[in-house]
Amino acid sequence: MSAMLAPDARDRYPSRRATEAALLTREDPVVHGSSVDGPLDAAQLAAFEQDGFLQLDGVFSGDEVAAMRAELRRMTDDPEIRADERTVVERNSNEVRSIFEVQAVSPLLDKVVTDTRVADVARQILGSDVYLHQTRINHKPGFDGKEFDWHSDFETWHVEDGMPSPRALSASIALTDNFEQNGPLLIMPGSHHTYVACVGQTPEDHYQASLVQQEIGVPDRTSLSILADRHGIASCTGKAGSVVFFDSNCMHGSNGNITPYPRSNVFAVFNSLHNALQAPFGAPKPRPGFIANGHPVAI
Amino acid sequence: MSAMLAPDARDRYPSRRATEAALLTREDPVVHGSSVDGPLDAAQLAAFEQDGFLQLDGVFSGDEVAAMRAELRRMTDDPEIRADERTVVERNSNEVRSIFEVQAVSPLLDKVVTDTRVADVARQILGSDVYLHQTRINHKPGFDGKEFDWHSDFETWHVEDGMPSPRALSASIALTDNFEQNGPLLIMPGSHHTYVACVGQTPEDHYQASLVQQEIGVPDRTSLSILADRHGIASCTGKAGSVVFFDSNCMHGSNGNITPYPRSNVFAVFNSLHNALQAPFGAPKPRPGFIANGHPVAI
Repeated sequence: MSAMLAPDARDRYPSRRATEAALLTREDPVVHGSSVDGPLDAAQLAAFEQDGFLQLDGVFSGDEVAAMRAELRRMTDDPEIRADERTVVERNSNEVRSIFEVQAVSPLLDKVVTDTRVADVARQILGSDVYLHQTRINHKPGFDGKEFDWHSDFETWHVEDGMPSPRALSASIALTDNFEQNGPLLIMPGSHHTYVACVGQTPEDHYQASLVQQEIGVPDRTSLSILADRHGIASCTGKAGSVVFFDSNCMHGSNGNITPYPRSNVFAVFNSLHNALQAPFGAPKPRPGFIANGHPVAI
Repeated sequence: MSAMLAPDARDRYPSRRATEAALLTREDPVVHGSSVDGPLDAAQLAAFEQDGFLQLDGVFSGDEVAAMRAELRRMTDDPEIRADERTVVERNSNEVRSIFEVQAVSPLLDKVVTDTRVADVARQILGSDVYLHQTRINHKPGFDGKEFDWHSDFETWHVEDGMPSPRALSASIALTDNFEQNGPLLIMPGSHHTYVACVGQTPEDHYQASLVQQEIGVPDRTSLSILADRHGIASCTGKAGSVVFFDSNCMHGSNGNITPYPRSNVFAVFNSLHNALQAPFGAPKPRPGFIANGHPVAI
C-alpha cells in the first residue's frame, strides 16, 4: 500500500484502503439535540434516529415553489451561469443538470437554504450551530433521467473532503412532485448506523487514475445486498414544497425516470460547526470550495 | 415518399409514414368475449376494457414459481441455449437477458404458456381460439437493470409483423416479486384506446438505415405527455406467481433497477386465430418466426 493511504490511527471511518469491503458500526450519535430545542418533536427525532431520514410535507407554499422554479429557469437560461464552473451541463442534451453553491449565485436561493424552517431542523438534529458544506440545485429531466447508484455521502465527504464524523445532514427541497415512478430518492432506512468501507486501492503496479476514479467510493454489491435485506428500501415521495432531511451516512440512490415528469430539487448540506473539515482522509488535496466549503461560518 | 411506405387504404393503423405524429382513436373492440365464457367475471372484463390490463395474484404457486426459476437457471447455463439465435445475451455482462420461443426450448415452459389458467383468460378476452404469437423469458438484473422506453407492442406487430388489428394480448407471469423500486411494468391505464402513429419516414435524401432504426416505432414525447396527463401511470406490482394480462396497444415501459433485486418474467403473447399475420404493413419482410409466429395453430 502507498504511504498516503496507509491505515491511520486517527481515522475511525477508513475507506478505499483495503481490497475487501467491510461493514463498520457507526459509533457517533445521529441526533445530537433534543425536542426542547424545537422544531421537531420527540417522535420525529426518534424517527430520524431510527430511520436516518424524515420527510416534512408542505414546508414551502405553492407560491414559494413557483418562485423557486422560475428562478431555476432564469438560472439555466443565463449564459454566464451556464458557463460557470459550478454548473454541470449534460453532455448529450446540453441541459443544465446541477448548479452548485446556489447561495452565491442566487439571492432567492440563498434565502431558501438558510430559511429557518430548514436550518432550525438541522441545528436541532446536529445539536449545534451549522454551516453550509455544499448546496446545489438538481434537475432530473423526464423521459431519460438517469439513475444515481447507491452511495453514502459521508464516505465521500470524509475521504475526499476531510469531514471527521457524520455530524452532518442533507435537506432536499422538492420543487416538483416526487412519486414512485419518476425516480424519487430511495433510502435504506436504518443504513446510516452502518458505515460501508469501500474497496478502493488497487495495487500500486496496477494503478490507473481513471479506473480508480470509477471504482473508489462505490459500495460493493454484497454489502448493498446485506443492507437492503436488513433494512428494506423506502421511496421519498411527496408533493412539491416538501423537504426530506437525511443523515450524511444514509445509503441512498435513485432510479432513472422514463415518465414525462421531471424532478427538480434544491439540496442543502448542513454540517455542525464542531465538525469542520480537516485534511482529506484519503485524497491528496481537498475538492474545490464550491463542492466542499472549507470556511465554516455559522448561518 | 417511397412506394413501399405510401399511404395504404387497407391500413387502419398507419404508422412510420408521416413527419408528424398523430393520436388515432382505436376502432376495434378490446374485449371480445363475455363473462359467461369464464374465467373472468363481468367486473374483471369491464376493468380490462377500461384500463387495458388486469392483474391476477397467486395464479401460480410458490412451488411452480420455484420450478420455473430453476428452469430459467438451467437454460441460462446451457451453452447450446446461450449460443442459440433465440437467446439475447447482454453485451457488457454476458448475462442472458431474454430467450425467445420458450415453448420450443423448454417442455416445462411450454406447459406454462399454454396453461389454461393463462390461456383461458386470453381466449375469453379475445373471444376466440388463440395461438402464441411470441413467447419469451426476460431477466432484468439487479443493480444495473436497464429501462425500457414507452411503446405500444401492437404498433410494432402491425408495422413489422403484419398483425391486422389489436386483437391480441400479453400475459406476463412474475417469477420474482415486482415492487415499485425494481423497475416494474408501467402502464398508462386506458391508453390502449388510442393508437399513436409514430414519426418514422425521413426524406429519402436523408435516409440512413441506422438512424431510422433508432427513430421509428418510437412514440414522440408530445404524444406520451398527452397520454400520461390524460391517463396517469400505473405500476404493476405483485408477488411472484401473479400474472398481468395487458392489451396489445397499451402504452407501457419500465424504469431501470438499481435495487439488488432482479426481475424475471415469462411473457406469452396470445393472438386471436381471426387475426393471423398478413404481409407487414410497413416493413420490407417479416421478422423471424421465433419473434413473430407466422403459423397460427390453436393451442
